[in-house]
Amino acid sequence: MAIITLTTDFGYKDHYVGAVKGAILSSLPDANIVDISHNISPFNVQECAYILKNAYQSFPKGSVHVVGVDSEISPENEHLVVWVDGHYFVGANSGVISLITSELQPEKIVEINLPNSIQSSFPVLNIFIPVACHIARGGKLEVIGKPFEGLKELRDFEPRVINEGKTISGNVIYIDNYGNVVTNIQKSLFEAYRNGRSFEIIARTTKIKEVQQSYNGIINYDLDRNQRKGPGDALALFNSAGYVELAIYKSDLNSVGGASTLLGLNYRDTVTINFL
Amino acid sequence: MAIITLTTDFGYKDHYVGAVKGAILSSLPDANIVDISHNISPFNVQECAYILKNAYQSFPKGSVHVVGVDSEISPENEHLVVWVDGHYFVGANSGVISLITSELQPEKIVEINLPNSIQSSFPVLNIFIPVACHIARGGKLEVIGKPFEGLKELRDFEPRVINEGKTISGNVIYIDNYGNVVTNIQKSLFEAYRNGRSFEIIARTTKIKEVQQSYNGIINYDLDRNQRKGPGDALALFNSAGYVELAIYKSDLNSVGGASTLLGLNYRDTVTINFL
Amino acid sequence: MAIITLTTDFGYKDHYVGAVKGAILSSLPDANIVDISHNISPFNVQECAYILKNAYQSFPKGSVHVVGVDSEISPENEHLVVWVDGHYFVGANSGVISLITSELQPEKIVEINLPNSIQSSFPVLNIFIPVACHIARGGKLEVIGKPFEGLKELRDFEPRVINEGKTISGNVIYIDNYGNVVTNIQKSLFEAYRNGRSFEIIARTTKIKEVQQSYNGIINYDLDRNQRKGPGDALALFNSAGYVELAIYKSDLNSVGGASTLLGLNYRDTVTINFL
Repeated sequence: MAIITLTTDFGYKDHYVGAVKGAILSSLPDANIVDISHNISPFNVQECAYILKNAYQSFPKGSVHVVGVDSEISPENEHLVVWVDGHYFVGANSGVISLITSELQPEKIVEINLPNSIQSSFPVLNIFIPVACHIARGGKLEVIGKPFEGLKELRDFEPRVINEGKTISGNVIYIDNYGNVVTNIQKSLFEAYRNGRSFEIIARTTKIKEVQQSYNGIINYDLDRNQRKGPGDALALFNSAGYVELAIYKSDLNSVGGASTLLGLNYRDTVTINFL
Repeated sequence: MAIITLTTDFGYKDHYVGAVKGAILSSLPDANIVDISHNISPFNVQECAYILKNAYQSFPKGSVHVVGVDSEISPENEHLVVWVDGHYFVGANSGVISLITSELQPEKIVEINLPNSIQSSFPVLNIFIPVACHIARGGKLEVIGKPFEGLKELRDFEPRVINEGKTISGNVIYIDNYGNVVTNIQKSLFEAYRNGRSFEIIARTTKIKEVQQSYNGIINYDLDRNQRKGPGDALALFNSAGYVELAIYKSDLNSVGGASTLLGLNYRDTVTINFL
Repeated sequence: MAIITLTTDFGYKDHYVGAVKGAILSSLPDANIVDISHNISPFNVQECAYILKNAYQSFPKGSVHVVGVDSEISPENEHLVVWVDGHYFVGANSGVISLITSELQPEKIVEINLPNSIQSSFPVLNIFIPVACHIARGGKLEVIGKPFEGLKELRDFEPRVINEGKTISGNVIYIDNYGNVVTNIQKSLFEAYRNGRSFEIIARTTKIKEVQQSYNGIINYDLDRNQRKGPGDALALFNSAGYVELAIYKSDLNSVGGASTLLGLNYRDTVTINFL
């Protein structure tokens, strides 16, 4: 069964997601439709890219990923299919696809040019779904449109290594459901510059001197419960996506708070690592 | 695979949706269950109708749509199956089905009368799902109950044409995930009275003199970026559902705001079109 | 098609749910993945148990339920598969499984011990999904790990019968999407002590003297509409899960309020039943 995933800013209330799923099933009754997220912040291609980048890799090769954020066509926002890393991405040339596939070279890019297609305020339904179903059915990219060069390059702000390799200056790129704060500092960069040195991770007034492999890495289970670290304590982690993340152990944004609220960190804020 | 869609006010946290899906799969292991929305405002049949009306049409004929809003049975709220437009709707006679199918004549309506069914506070699970599975399995409506006449007619407030055809006075019927404000003025009504005249759309203190086919219709891509309209500018649109909609270009209710917050428009508020 | 359900505190925005679904489909292309809820309050095993307990029973025997709340492994939180009531639960030994299956005796419990598994901050993806797919594929529990004794017993606070059987003192255990307040007083307990007596249910300053079988049980449809009870009136109900529930008829937390807000009831608050 062909897999078509959906990543949009439609939210979970309006008719948009339902209409899209109905259209897929009308065209391809056996399609396996998977929601990645419909809660992308409206028009936020950075956020969309972060989420889809960290989700698509666990899908089988050949999956078709519909990217429904900022998808109206314009002279500056062509409709594209990008085949890269064995996956198909159907979306607009907003830069989101270059963010998703940043380190990878696309194998093929075509600009969508459907016969008889009309200007529409719902291009995910009217353009992306027919295209996604065509691909999921095993159709050729050549039928959809002509080869395209000019994939818009959008770059995330990237961490800087300064102070003669003694400091990595990064930024917050995502805050998750637990209020955990993800930075753009990858484990590989950290390790490349660490050279066995001690370090301090500095985020506003918080200093952390260790990076854990799991959230409960801060807990010494040999100690009595009342002597251990535990819920409410801050920690740094190499997260499952490979980034340095700041977290509060067992946080809950709706009650005790999370790293974002307790450490006072927002999207784009600076997080610094000093090697000592 | 038979398609059963779900439109409810259960929300996405409680066990209700999960219990319903389990019951469907227990009865019909191959069922293709599609969530249209579970975020209908509680007991809001108008909202439910707007969302389901704009979603069901993209599903294949023969799909079964479970309507799980205000569904307790009473002498004034019978349980029905309505076959209309090639689709089956299973729900209560709350008026929601007449709103969904307003311009269509149902082919068949039966009142659900299951043997051994008990009074229940969870009729979607106990009544609608067995019925939906029966239909999805190809079962006859006659087995479910007797023909029913008396479908409750609930009418949306409708736009009025006044001032000798110079004015259409409509209302806000829905506010979507982007804060876009949908009116009950259909494109067809607008065009029938326009007769080539100029016009002003008036919503509180905002006046708009054009209706776009797409959100970025307000942007003149021949101009430099700093001379163009763009994010934050108001516009009117014939939306994908065929209604006049007021929007803010690239709005986000959680940051810059949307048409509802920036133009100060709520459900039921008046939107007027004056032909000049 | 094997059914794998997901109950987590991942929320509906981040990439976690998408990544998990991709991993399932990569391993088991025919898997039927059902979301029970991803809106469990972070690390709240009581809430997770309440929701999953009331949902899993409607699924077919043999279903595999992944419990993705508080799932990091530690010396005090082993990774388990519990086979009970014909269903498989894959989760951590946080007490959640004992709450779900409180009155049932597990048929088999194994401690997960996968070869080559690494410490991970995303155990649902890295541990639970491979295990769930193995089971869904018909694999044996013995392959996954050794028999385990020591299922952590977490007990919900339970209602007390006091005052020589004249009073049941219970607590609020859940507040649902409508603001309905679910107590831990089961219908069976109520009936066992009632002995035909009249009673008062007391929740703060509210007294209710009847328990309905359905929400509209408070309405006398023989009366004119303006003489009836209706929206906004408080009621008590034996809900579909078998508990005494306090509700406001046709409540909406986002507009008129619900039982939780209007009666001033929070999680753990006391609800008392006095037999007269």
